[in-house]
Amino acid sequence: MLTQESRTSLSEIADLNQLKHELNEMPAIDVGDYIAELPPEKRAIAFRLLNKTEATDVFEYLPQEIQEELIGLLHNAQVCQIVESMRPDDRAELFDELPAGIAKRLVQQLSPEERQATATILGYAEGTAGRVMTTEYVRLRQGLTVGEALAKIRLADQDKETIYYAYVTDNNRKLKQVVSLRQLLFSIPDVLIEDIASDRVIKAKTEMPQEEVAQLMKRYDLIAVPVVDREDRLVGIITVDDVVDILEQEATEDIQKLAGVSGGDESSLSHPLEKLRNRLPWLVGVMALYIGASSAIAPFQKTISLVPVLAVIMPLFSNTGGTVGIQALTVTIRSLGVGEVTPADTMKILRRELLAGLGTALALGTTMVLLSLIWTSPETRWVGYVAGLVMAANSVIAVTLGTLLPMGLKRLKLDPALISGPLVTTMLDTIGFILFLTLITISLNILHLPT
Amino acid sequence: MLTQESRTSLSEIADLNQLKHELNEMPAIDVGDYIAELPPEKRAIAFRLLNKTEATDVFEYLPQEIQEELIGLLHNAQVCQIVESMRPDDRAELFDELPAGIAKRLVQQLSPEERQATATILGYAEGTAGRVMTTEYVRLRQGLTVGEALAKIRLADQDKETIYYAYVTDNNRKLKQVVSLRQLLFSIPDVLIEDIASDRVIKAKTEMPQEEVAQLMKRYDLIAVPVVDREDRLVGIITVDDVVDILEQEATEDIQKLAGVSGGDESSLSHPLEKLRNRLPWLVGVMALYIGASSAIAPFQKTISLVPVLAVIMPLFSNTGGTVGIQALTVTIRSLGVGEVTPADTMKILRRELLAGLGTALALGTTMVLLSLIWTSPETRWVGYVAGLVMAANSVIAVTLGTLLPMGLKRLKLDPALISGPLVTTMLDTIGFILFLTLITISLNILHLPT
Repeated sequence: MLTQESRTSLSEIADLNQLKHELNEMPAIDVGDYIAELPPEKRAIAFRLLNKTEATDVFEYLPQEIQEELIGLLHNAQVCQIVESMRPDDRAELFDELPAGIAKRLVQQLSPEERQATATILGYAEGTAGRVMTTEYVRLRQGLTVGEALAKIRLADQDKETIYYAYVTDNNRKLKQVVSLRQLLFSIPDVLIEDIASDRVIKAKTEMPQEEVAQLMKRYDLIAVPVVDREDRLVGIITVDDVVDILEQEATEDIQKLAGVSGGDESSLSHPLEKLRNRLPWLVGVMALYIGASSAIAPFQKTISLVPVLAVIMPLFSNTGGTVGIQALTVTIRSLGVGEVTPADTMKILRRELLAGLGTALALGTTMVLLSLIWTSPETRWVGYVAGLVMAANSVIAVTLGTLLPMGLKRLKLDPALISGPLVTTMLDTIGFILFLTLITISLNILHLPT
Repeated sequence: MLTQESRTSLSEIADLNQLKHELNEMPAIDVGDYIAELPPEKRAIAFRLLNKTEATDVFEYLPQEIQEELIGLLHNAQVCQIVESMRPDDRAELFDELPAGIAKRLVQQLSPEERQATATILGYAEGTAGRVMTTEYVRLRQGLTVGEALAKIRLADQDKETIYYAYVTDNNRKLKQVVSLRQLLFSIPDVLIEDIASDRVIKAKTEMPQEEVAQLMKRYDLIAVPVVDREDRLVGIITVDDVVDILEQEATEDIQKLAGVSGGDESSLSHPLEKLRNRLPWLVGVMALYIGASSAIAPFQKTISLVPVLAVIMPLFSNTGGTVGIQALTVTIRSLGVGEVTPADTMKILRRELLAGLGTALALGTTMVLLSLIWTSPETRWVGYVAGLVMAANSVIAVTLGTLLPMGLKRLKLDPALISGPLVTTMLDTIGFILFLTLITISLNILHLPT
C-alpha cells in the first residue's frame, strides 16, 4: 500500500519523467487523491503524464469539480478518449452532474455503442438498479459450448470484476441461467454451457431500489447480480463494489436523517452553505412545532409561578423522554435498514419494546422521585411523585412512538427515516409537558395540595 | 429468487422426499431461515434431509442458539463432519460462542490441519484482521508456471470467492505478489507466474482493526485482501462478503451509540432485557448529569417565578441547541467512520462548521426573537432579545462541541462515538440554561428591567 510519504510533491521533482513513472505505478485512486490535492494550475500537467488506461481510471476517481475543470483544460481528443473508455455507469453519473451543454457535446462525440449504453442507464430513475448498473458484462447465448464461452470471455476484455460470472440468455435476450468463470474453467470444453450453468438465477429488476439490490447481494454473498427489464431481458449487471458504496450511502442517510440533517450525504468537508441548507429546515421546523407546544404550556404560567421547582424538573424529563424515544426509533430504523425486520414483525417488536419500556419506566420513574427529594421541600414532595408518574408514562409513550412511527411509514412504502429524531423529541416534549402540567394543576386546584 | 410462498411448511408435505428435494434446491441462507422458523422439535428432522455440502452451508447461516441446539440433537458423526467442513473463520466464530466444554470436545475431533487453522484464527484479538480472515486461499510458490498454477487452483476446490486471486510467496512464505485468475487464464501456460503477477500488493496486517481492513478494500475495490503477520508471511485472506458485513456492523454501532444505545448491535428483535441493558446506562447517566444542571438552575427559581415566560422559552432553546449539536456531531462521526476525514482535518472542518454555525445562529436567534413577540408583553420584550442572543451563542457552542469532541477522541485513538448524543444535548442544555438565566438575572437585578 502506498503511504503519504511516498507521494512526492510535484515541486520536489526536477525530472517530470520520474513523476510520470511514479504516477503510473500507483493505484489509480491514490493518483486521483494526489492530483486533487495539487494546486489547480498543476493538475492538468500531472494528469497529462498518465498513460491512456491509467488516465481513464484516475479520472473516474476525481471529485466532480475537478473532472469538470480538467474537461475544460485538456485537449478535446484526450477528453473524448477518456469519456469513451469510462465504465458506462460512471460515465452516466458524470453526464448527469455536468452542465447540460458540456454533457451534450460529449455525448455527441461518443461511439454509437457507448452513446446507447449511456442513454440506457440515464433512462432509469435515480436510485434504481437501472441507474447504478453497468452495461459491460459477459452474455452467452444458449447453445454455446464451454470452449466457445471461454473464447468469448477472452475476447471481451472487460473490467476485471465483471468476468467472474457470465449470463446465459435465449434468442430474445431473456435471462435463463448463470455460470461462474470457475465452473467454465473446470469443465470439459465440449460440454454445452446450459448443462453446467445454474437455473437458480438471483436477479434484480431495473426499477428495484438500489438499497434492495444491495440487501439482496449481501444476503446471497454475490459478487455481481444481473439486472433485467420488465420482459425479463438482461440489460446490465451490478457489481459488489457498487454494493459496498450503496450500503454506506444508505447508512449515512439513515444516520443523518435521524439527527435532522436532510441532504443525506453531507460530509464534514461539505460547503458551509450546503450544511446550512441541510440542517436549517429541521431546526426551524422544530421551533415552529414549539409554537404549538409552548402555546400549550403558556396557560400554565400561573401554575409555574406557584411551583417554580417545575422549571427545574421539566427540562430533565423532557430530555430523558426524548432520549428513550430516539433509542427505540434508532433501533427500529436501523433494523429496517439492514433488512432484519419488516412491518409484518410490528406486533412482535412492539411487545419486546414495551417490555423494555416498562423496565425503563420503572427505573426512570423511581430515579425521578429520588431526585425530587433534593429539589422539593416536604410540603411539595407530591410534585416529585407526579413527576415520577409522568416520567414513567412518558417512557412507555416514547418507545411506542419510536417503534410504530417508522413501521407505519415503511408499511406505507415511505422512508422510515422520514420521521427524524428532532421531530420525535419535540412531540414527546409536548406530550410530557402537557401531561405533567395538567396533573400538577389538577392537584393544586382540585386536590388543593400545598405549594 | 425464492419467495415466502414457495417455502412450503413441513406439516403440509405428506412426502418428506418432496421436502428433501425442495430444500436441496433452495439457496442455503433461505433453508437456514426456513429451519430457524420451524418449531424446535422439527428442526433436526428437516436438517437431516440436507445433503452433505448443503448441510454445512445451511449450518453456517443458522443463528447461534439453533446451532448449539442442533449440535446436541444430531449424531456425533454428522456434527463432526459439518464442523470439519465449515469455513475456518465461521468455525472459529462458532467455537468462540459455544460453551467451553462442547467447543473443546469438537476441537479434539477435528483433523490436525483444521484444528491448526482454527487455533490460528482464535489466537488473534476480536475485531482484528486475524480474527475475521479465512485460512482457505490459494498460495503459489515463486517459480511455478501459469499452467502449474492453474492445475493447483483446480485441485484446491475451495470456496468460490477465494479463487479469483492467488498469492505468490517465497520459500519463507513471505508474500511477494498477487495474480488474478483472469491474468492466469489469459496467459500462455509456460510463462512463469512471477512475470505476470503484480508486485503492487495491497495487504492487511493481522492486528489491523477490521474496520480499517474494510475501508482499505472499499478504497481499492478489492474482492479479497491478503493478511500477513509481523514477518510479512501470508496467513490468510479476507473476502468482500465479510467486508460488507463489517461495514454494516460499524455503521450500526455508530448510529446506535449516537442515540445512546451502547451494545452496538441491538436489533428490533433483541430480548427486552438486552434492550434494557443497552439503553438504561445512558438514561440514568443523563439524569445524573442533570443533578448538576438542575443544581445550577435551582438558585434561579426566584427569577423564574418573577418571569414565568422563561418556563415557556427554556425548553425551546434547550431542544434546538441540542439538535444543532447532534447535527454537527453526527456528520463528524460519520465522516470519520467512512474514512473521509482524519483528525488532521480538524481546523479545516471547524472553519466550515463555524461558518454554517454562524448562519444557524443568525437564523435561530432571529426566529427566537420573533417567537418571543407571541409570548412576551411589550414590557418584557427584552426577555426575547436575551433569549435570541443566548440561542445564537448556544448554536455556535453546539457546532464547536459537536465537531471538536469526536475529533479529540479520534486523536486520542478512542472511539469518536464514545460521546453519545444524549451526553452532548445534556451538556448544551446546561450551558444554555446557565447562560440564559444568568443574563436574565443580571438584567433584572442590575439593569432593573421590568417583569
